[in-house]
Amino acid sequence: MKNALFALIVGILVLYAGSGRAADLPVSEATADCLECHALIHPGMVKDWQSSRHAQMTPKQAMAAEGPALKVSSPTVPANLLGTSVGCAECHTLNPKSHADTFEHNGYDIHVVVSPDDCAACHSQEAGQYSKNIMAHAYANLDANPLYRKLQISIIGRKKIIDGKMTYAPADEATQAEACYYCHGTRLKVTGSETRETELAGELEFPVIEGWPNQGVGRINPDGSLGSCAACHTRHAFSIEMARKPYTCKECHVGPDVPAFKVYEASKHGNIFSAMNKSWDFNAVPWSIGRDFTAPTCATCHVSLLVNKDGEVVAERTHQVSNRLPWRIFGLIYAHPQPQSPDTSKIRNQAGQPLPTDLDGGFAAAYLIDEKEMNLRRKTMQKVCLNCHADSWVNGHWQRFENTIRETNADILTATQTMSAIWSQGLADFQANPFDEAIEKKWTDAWQFYANTIRFASAMAGGGDYGVYAGGRYQLTKSLLEINDWRVLQEKVAAQSNK
Amino acid sequence: MKNALFALIVGILVLYAGSGRAADLPVSEATADCLECHALIHPGMVKDWQSSRHAQMTPKQAMAAEGPALKVSSPTVPANLLGTSVGCAECHTLNPKSHADTFEHNGYDIHVVVSPDDCAACHSQEAGQYSKNIMAHAYANLDANPLYRKLQISIIGRKKIIDGKMTYAPADEATQAEACYYCHGTRLKVTGSETRETELAGELEFPVIEGWPNQGVGRINPDGSLGSCAACHTRHAFSIEMARKPYTCKECHVGPDVPAFKVYEASKHGNIFSAMNKSWDFNAVPWSIGRDFTAPTCATCHVSLLVNKDGEVVAERTHQVSNRLPWRIFGLIYAHPQPQSPDTSKIRNQAGQPLPTDLDGGFAAAYLIDEKEMNLRRKTMQKVCLNCHADSWVNGHWQRFENTIRETNADILTATQTMSAIWSQGLADFQANPFDEAIEKKWTDAWQFYANTIRFASAMAGGGDYGVYAGGRYQLTKSLLEINDWRVLQEKVAAQSNK
Amino acid sequence: MKNALFALIVGILVLYAGSGRAADLPVSEATADCLECHALIHPGMVKDWQSSRHAQMTPKQAMAAEGPALKVSSPTVPANLLGTSVGCAECHTLNPKSHADTFEHNGYDIHVVVSPDDCAACHSQEAGQYSKNIMAHAYANLDANPLYRKLQISIIGRKKIIDGKMTYAPADEATQAEACYYCHGTRLKVTGSETRETELAGELEFPVIEGWPNQGVGRINPDGSLGSCAACHTRHAFSIEMARKPYTCKECHVGPDVPAFKVYEASKHGNIFSAMNKSWDFNAVPWSIGRDFTAPTCATCHVSLLVNKDGEVVAERTHQVSNRLPWRIFGLIYAHPQPQSPDTSKIRNQAGQPLPTDLDGGFAAAYLIDEKEMNLRRKTMQKVCLNCHADSWVNGHWQRFENTIRETNADILTATQTMSAIWSQGLADFQANPFDEAIEKKWTDAWQFYANTIRFASAMAGGGDYGVYAGGRYQLTKSLLEINDWRVLQEKVAAQSNK
Repeated sequence: MKNALFALIVGILVLYAGSGRAADLPVSEATADCLECHALIHPGMVKDWQSSRHAQMTPKQAMAAEGPALKVSSPTVPANLLGTSVGCAECHTLNPKSHADTFEHNGYDIHVVVSPDDCAACHSQEAGQYSKNIMAHAYANLDANPLYRKLQISIIGRKKIIDGKMTYAPADEATQAEACYYCHGTRLKVTGSETRETELAGELEFPVIEGWPNQGVGRINPDGSLGSCAACHTRHAFSIEMARKPYTCKECHVGPDVPAFKVYEASKHGNIFSAMNKSWDFNAVPWSIGRDFTAPTCATCHVSLLVNKDGEVVAERTHQVSNRLPWRIFGLIYAHPQPQSPDTSKIRNQAGQPLPTDLDGGFAAAYLIDEKEMNLRRKTMQKVCLNCHADSWVNGHWQRFENTIRETNADILTATQTMSAIWSQGLADFQANPFDEAIEKKWTDAWQFYANTIRFASAMAGGGDYGVYAGGRYQLTKSLLEINDWRVLQEKVAAQSNK
Repeated sequence: MKNALFALIVGILVLYAGSGRAADLPVSEATADCLECHALIHPGMVKDWQSSRHAQMTPKQAMAAEGPALKVSSPTVPANLLGTSVGCAECHTLNPKSHADTFEHNGYDIHVVVSPDDCAACHSQEAGQYSKNIMAHAYANLDANPLYRKLQISIIGRKKIIDGKMTYAPADEATQAEACYYCHGTRLKVTGSETRETELAGELEFPVIEGWPNQGVGRINPDGSLGSCAACHTRHAFSIEMARKPYTCKECHVGPDVPAFKVYEASKHGNIFSAMNKSWDFNAVPWSIGRDFTAPTCATCHVSLLVNKDGEVVAERTHQVSNRLPWRIFGLIYAHPQPQSPDTSKIRNQAGQPLPTDLDGGFAAAYLIDEKEMNLRRKTMQKVCLNCHADSWVNGHWQRFENTIRETNADILTATQTMSAIWSQGLADFQANPFDEAIEKKWTDAWQFYANTIRFASAMAGGGDYGVYAGGRYQLTKSLLEINDWRVLQEKVAAQSNK
Repeated sequence: MKNALFALIVGILVLYAGSGRAADLPVSEATADCLECHALIHPGMVKDWQSSRHAQMTPKQAMAAEGPALKVSSPTVPANLLGTSVGCAECHTLNPKSHADTFEHNGYDIHVVVSPDDCAACHSQEAGQYSKNIMAHAYANLDANPLYRKLQISIIGRKKIIDGKMTYAPADEATQAEACYYCHGTRLKVTGSETRETELAGELEFPVIEGWPNQGVGRINPDGSLGSCAACHTRHAFSIEMARKPYTCKECHVGPDVPAFKVYEASKHGNIFSAMNKSWDFNAVPWSIGRDFTAPTCATCHVSLLVNKDGEVVAERTHQVSNRLPWRIFGLIYAHPQPQSPDTSKIRNQAGQPLPTDLDGGFAAAYLIDEKEMNLRRKTMQKVCLNCHADSWVNGHWQRFENTIRETNADILTATQTMSAIWSQGLADFQANPFDEAIEKKWTDAWQFYANTIRFASAMAGGGDYGVYAGGRYQLTKSLLEINDWRVLQEKVAAQSNK
């Protein structure tokens, strides 16, 4: 009853308002052509767009906003885009020549894959920042690193046991696209074209794109640009609200290697969000601390433009998320200062391995940011904290966090020393692949799951369970014990065989 | 403040409207009698019902709806039910003779357990479909399958170690009801009656029902019918809204064997749902894509009657959920085409085992749907996808999905071949029970948890984490390695014992 | 559009109302002084408070409420607090002499840590109850128990492998604060003072508090009181709404040892909450079953003052949560009747160990509540159930629950008997520390994770997955099998070494 009634009054108001605003807004002729068919055959897609800001405002109107409220960051926007809503054609026909996936479609040169370079027409600053974001390089950072490729094949490779030993064949393209590269992004490649019978226009020709569909953060687009804005600003609403809610980040940050969402949800911040966010304003730009929200989401600390009650900027918007991060707490194999360059494939440690840390925990310092830069980033992040917490709170929190980085690194050193004994005795083979045997998986659990989980729990003060029993210190200790237990038993059995 | 005020205006409107509608609606005399006591002693139950459509509309009014808006699917409804709200007595006194749990209660013959056959008075089509749903047969599909009974006892049986070996006694009825049969449904059996002192009516006699309470999908009711509509349409609101939200499915689909909810929540669809569903209409019938919602929930793809913006039917409502499913991705022990009959206890593989697949992955084809039927179901499901996605997207997705079915089946074959070596060497005992030893549990992990999780992640494009590190390919590979590691070690130790 | 419009009308109303209410309310001079700076430098903190009942009502106004609606439980409130809102100064300058963390700050003697003894000025009954809550004693119950200290060091201690054996050094203070004591609460200790440069007032002196920040339930405060009301009533809104929603409990009850939140979320109750709570009233006091909500949250069953539709009290408010709990289902190492005293460090079992149960499952009865008290608590809890469920439902549920306590205890006995064989053969060392070896962790998994999860699933009828495959009976059985498997193999290898 309550719901029905409420829906009713909102409904009436929406109808009333709907008849006004949307009708007045000029839609380009090309977009009107698109909508003629697609509103019918893809109602979900079109309705999503119709509810978006893109459908309800022209770039010219948007550019009238001043100061931090301005969302269009490009100094100039192509004249032909200024006066109409940002519809299908505006994005899907932009820069036709740079897109290898451009094809003729009912009289238009359209491309399937809208890329950050397309979005840059209006949002050049965000696109520019994002290109320097480590996420934008997620494809090659995995694919072009010979050691990570070994890790990859040891997980998603096709397995066969030959002569009692596991062997791995490379995973096929579909498996790759669905596993690692679902989040890292695929390499999109036009491999040909095909004719399809369509409902409204008979036979039509479409490009065939290997790696499609994909919305991974480091997707390699047919125009050569990197990433997909839709990874976070989900098509076709592209809403700030969705990107600011933590569910978006969960798409790729919920597993035991990066349990950011799970930790957040169990933290005090996550609790406040879950209980109270229904009354927050997720669309306000800039985002005002206290007024628009009372606890941070992922975006608050890592991305958004924040102001205090007097409108003073607390944090500048950044789509290069490491800007506020001194440490990379995702251990490879230890936590370490953030890499200098978003392209991490060039990093080499002292032993020449493509890793940001040595096997004994030393940092590949030449490739990582220095203490001065770390301090700068610490301050940037802490400025956000300090709007709701006193200095003593913030300092106490950060001391614990940096202590936890040291302590977990020390535990991983212990695990790795045991593995070194195992490798040097020939009980497992480091050279062939350090990740592809049963005991090596236990070691991987330690640094990739448990140490990471502990650090995420620490970073977000999501403490309690994720720091101890929910994939935290308990499991880390257990894995260290089991690696050692295995070593002792194998040595005994080997000794008996040699008797 | 915001909340308080908002509550206030909504409250006023509700009061105003409440005073009108509800008062006008005729409640049957019998239901009025029920309410006299139960509104007092069970306010939660009664209030839930009062907020329901059942309380706010007579079947006659409901039957005035036309076309897809019609919710009463029975061609005719018993005359005595037409003119009053659907209250306590309407359901709890229906078909008194077929209910073994009918008892005299303050002058009425009522039964405790309302069954699908009762609901069929108004909703015959849904009840009919549901009786052909594999879920309706969940009790016997587990209980009447000798192999699954072995699996069951190896999990919930009472354990004792005798002479250094684990033995299992059958679980008691209470444990069964709380474990497997909580979801599968219990067999309800009237075993006698008891007298209880009641607050308002002194001593009263009530039936004693073994297996009660239960709301499992395959419950065997005292009237012989199968299932419980309240499993999804929770008593006593029976709301469409709840059944359409994914939380309902989570009650039984969150564990590692069927992690549908977890995968959904981390998928793009789940993200959109979580962020935006507050503004969706979960009560509209039919359910209009784009207008009422902008991303699917479980019900959207598997159950609901969907229309596009022109009101054209995109998918017919079905309570036989396999209607839209070519594959059964829940491996037993491999993924396979859907069974032809919802009663799976009759299925036999080539070796005569009650399994839909052979131990080497072959399909028990005689009992499973054929390629033609699979194609039909593929099309039915894809028609839903195509309202928000272009053909190239949908085709790409399905190619990956079917590839993943093949690939995970291939991995399970590798696991099973290692187990075959273990069984044939007598390191474990297949004949006695293939599921009840430590190493057999590791094998069970592989096919029941990890392969399933990978397939669910694939099916729902919930990719990333659940396909790799969150119980996916990483854990599948690890389990294969550990099974082999165990085999190698056991062989070595056995060889030394024989020296 | 819908959202924007809705935000607009609500916004207008809020602005209108905002200009009225808040302005009329007297803020104390001292609080006004605080706000002068802190509204600027801590907008998040201040805005949170401004939205609170504390900011919108004076104690005198609040004390005008009658009967169960009265929230101020202290018979008298200090006169100087009666007439103004409950602002910064009201709490942070209360009882200055008892607070070791009191310091001079711009003319006021303020303390950083507001404690339950401060809150008792207005809420003496809740503070009194809470001091008898086992949670209030969570620090010493862990820290003063020599056996639990062994458990603690075996999880969070710093690990080194020396001569092939794992050794543990005590965890540093920061690790302790972030791990176990994040939830249990830290011991706050003023260790000195420091001078900090501040934005608005230049150099100022602040106390340095070891163990800060912390909001654990058993925090030892600088005034000697125990706990933090903000653990559940999050600063600085202190809202009943948040404490009543289950997300608050999740902060410490989501891990595998106490998976209460996860089980709740997957239960029928949790499903109803998730789907429908947007229309519930979480601020009503008393809380009326059916009217304000239609399914329980954690607080409903364990804490809140509940009334039925006639306003009759169904359950009295209690901040001593064991008041409604006959059993403690968190196994140490078996489930057992609730302890008599919230200080559990004095409990000794028959063998003199500081455990509520013997190693063979016997209860340390002298320290636990008796059957009569258990019955009383059963009745108290069941009275809540009975407002939405009939007797047969409630009885059936409780029979299963108590059966599950017996059955899981029996399984843990089996596990412990195997461990006893392992300990007595010297394959592991009980005396040194029964928790710190690989095989002992497997045993810990059994009683601390799987048996607990099964019991939580049973208690909350969250059955299905958590009772079987999601850390339930499947994993319990598997761990028992693996402990035995390990024993058999170790014995074989040991026998060969002795040949």
